[in-house]
Amino acid sequence: MGNARRQLRFGAALHGAGGNMASWRHPEAPSDASVNFPYYKSQALKAEEGKFDFLFIADGLYINEKSIPHFLNRFEPITILSALAAVTSRIGVVGTLSTSYSEPFTVARQFGSLDHISGGRAGWNVVTSPLEGSALNYSKAEHPNHALRYRIANEYLEVTKGLWDSWEDDAFIRDKESGVFFDPAKLHRLNHKGEFFSVQGPLNIARSRQGQPVIFQAGASEDGRSFAAKVADAIFTNGETFEEARSYYADVKRRVKEAGRDPERVLIFPGIGPIVGGTEEEAERRYREAAELVSVDNALDYLGRFFEHHDFSRYPLDEPFPELGELGRNSFRSTTDKIKREAKENGWTLRETALRVTTPRGAFIGAPEQVADRIQAWFEQGAADGFIVGPGVPGGLGDFVDEVLPILRRRGLFREEYESDTLRGHLGLPIPENRYAVERRLAERV
Amino acid sequence: MGNARRQLRFGAALHGAGGNMASWRHPEAPSDASVNFPYYKSQALKAEEGKFDFLFIADGLYINEKSIPHFLNRFEPITILSALAAVTSRIGVVGTLSTSYSEPFTVARQFGSLDHISGGRAGWNVVTSPLEGSALNYSKAEHPNHALRYRIANEYLEVTKGLWDSWEDDAFIRDKESGVFFDPAKLHRLNHKGEFFSVQGPLNIARSRQGQPVIFQAGASEDGRSFAAKVADAIFTNGETFEEARSYYADVKRRVKEAGRDPERVLIFPGIGPIVGGTEEEAERRYREAAELVSVDNALDYLGRFFEHHDFSRYPLDEPFPELGELGRNSFRSTTDKIKREAKENGWTLRETALRVTTPRGAFIGAPEQVADRIQAWFEQGAADGFIVGPGVPGGLGDFVDEVLPILRRRGLFREEYESDTLRGHLGLPIPENRYAVERRLAERV
Repeated sequence: MGNARRQLRFGAALHGAGGNMASWRHPEAPSDASVNFPYYKSQALKAEEGKFDFLFIADGLYINEKSIPHFLNRFEPITILSALAAVTSRIGVVGTLSTSYSEPFTVARQFGSLDHISGGRAGWNVVTSPLEGSALNYSKAEHPNHALRYRIANEYLEVTKGLWDSWEDDAFIRDKESGVFFDPAKLHRLNHKGEFFSVQGPLNIARSRQGQPVIFQAGASEDGRSFAAKVADAIFTNGETFEEARSYYADVKRRVKEAGRDPERVLIFPGIGPIVGGTEEEAERRYREAAELVSVDNALDYLGRFFEHHDFSRYPLDEPFPELGELGRNSFRSTTDKIKREAKENGWTLRETALRVTTPRGAFIGAPEQVADRIQAWFEQGAADGFIVGPGVPGGLGDFVDEVLPILRRRGLFREEYESDTLRGHLGLPIPENRYAVERRLAERV
Repeated sequence: MGNARRQLRFGAALHGAGGNMASWRHPEAPSDASVNFPYYKSQALKAEEGKFDFLFIADGLYINEKSIPHFLNRFEPITILSALAAVTSRIGVVGTLSTSYSEPFTVARQFGSLDHISGGRAGWNVVTSPLEGSALNYSKAEHPNHALRYRIANEYLEVTKGLWDSWEDDAFIRDKESGVFFDPAKLHRLNHKGEFFSVQGPLNIARSRQGQPVIFQAGASEDGRSFAAKVADAIFTNGETFEEARSYYADVKRRVKEAGRDPERVLIFPGIGPIVGGTEEEAERRYREAAELVSVDNALDYLGRFFEHHDFSRYPLDEPFPELGELGRNSFRSTTDKIKREAKENGWTLRETALRVTTPRGAFIGAPEQVADRIQAWFEQGAADGFIVGPGVPGGLGDFVDEVLPILRRRGLFREEYESDTLRGHLGLPIPENRYAVERRLAERV
């Protein structure tokens, strides 16, 4: 029965010590976690022990004095993923890279190379960079606006996917006797000339065992959802409440279908921050301990980050959340819209809003059975195909692996062992056929 | 005595199966070596067993049907170095990245992150991209000319080194009790505004235990030598003949001194392709076997690569090397000048020139004692501070480690064990002091 049942998928988000912006202060956390390779390696091995589908590394291209601690000084995704690929053998390696401040030839190569190093376990979380300040680090006069960033991203993905198909899967003959290394008929130039990019190709790396790296996307705005529906294999979304997650799930699956794709082949992963305790009370205590590590000043700064680094310290703390007009709509649009709406609906003060944003309560706090129940409910009631787990407290990944996953396994909802050794294999996604092989097949049929 | 004596340094160049363009055909080579991670890992571990100072990964940004096999499909340097850093513990990890087709903020981050992952073992070989075709893969109207590329590279290095100093070494306080994570007075914006780049900073990664990654450079032309003398910690050069190497060594050390730097703190590494046999005859046989794997057609294509992919098949094979005028002077200038000069001086035919370029004889073919003698002579007679070893035949790294290094150790010229765990430590290079810490120190003295 277990085999026939639809299966959960899990990603493990590694970001510093995990949890909120003050987690580095937690007694169980190494305070330098965000640049501590032995710590990242131990977390990756714990996730692999738990048979997680993939590791997930987020990113950003701009910091200032107000940035949260684990953003100030942290590993760059391509490097840390490559390092983790070398010390693991089955788990996928997925990371964020921006299409607004990079070159498709380089990015196609780096993810292609990661895909070979890992033996077909790479994934790319495509982002367009929400932070205005990124432009200042990249010799650009201004940060492209939201709509323009998505236009660039669309063309960028076309180029990258095209470059990844430069070599057909059987292009390399490697016959030592005859000296024939490859078949030139199976090497292709992309010759892309578009609005933003001109890229000839071919790429100097072949496809991996999984064909192409898995494309993740986290679009939440209108443009973002459409883009994700069109290009993504897997979609990362905010997993704060069941209603939001279910509404997002339904909307994006509809868009996927409208884009002419199979909704079962595009997986939706709410990001959740589970906090597990032996009892519900212990879990609540852990939540409070974590939340109380954050000072009010730090919470205000953190809130400001979503609103173009707005200075919230100018407002009275215990009066209603201030009116901000359009502020925040060009960067983390969907997040800022939601913060404004929730603060109004619940009558939160600035202080309440800031603490709530800094340490979200989430829906996954409780005893192991309670967390497992919630996961099963979201999974079976149209809110998720799987979850990206960014533990709410340091050490939380271990608790999740040791306490929650065994319950889900007993219920037949999650694998006992890896059944594949590529990321596409884990996720049940097909290997995309090489575009030129498709053309050849169609031409031969005529 | 051994400790007092000036010590040799060694880098191991990993490129596919090693040796010439046809090495993939060699009976001992995996034919897919250039994308075979277990193979790279085994070579890296062999070099670390030999106490090599560093691994070295070359690169290129353009291929076509005529490119040599291990360039067609190969690992990208940042990814493979990060992976190898994770499976080694002492050896340095050095790789090529071009300043003509990348962004300093990203490159500073990636090498900075590699430097943390490896615990202070990273090095960057700064190149300006000789291949014209690179522009076609990077949405550029044209490839910048030789002089312009070096102007860009000069500014690029200023920016990168500046970004690496964003955080002073004691900036991170990380006091769990007080909640103070860092000292804002020790975080610095670069605010660079130059001819080619505008980069505000700060960088979102701190300095590593070795301060900054080691800068390698391989300038051979007039512009290249001056650039290397000004910015490099270590310089990679062609090691074909003793006379050339000695002349290069003297010239570059003079330039280093003229640039106001200490010539003993800028190390010069000829790249050599040793072929070791039990006897001189066996080594010669191994050379011939390797050379004979290359077909004449392939040799002509390879030659063409240095001359802007010129088609040499249009000339008669057994007549003198053709007159080419200025062809080849905008890309691999020093190499093409040398090929033209040597062909003329020695009266080589096109065939002889092509075979000679494809499989250089080099000076390091022989029995282990002979190769060790030659290394010692170059080292003691002003031609080298160390060597980058790119074995002339597959399996050659193991022969070098097992047969040649023990002789050099007995002579007190090479370490028995690692005496440091950073790349700067291995190379005897000082940790560059943070520029802002220097300013602070000077200001306090006044």
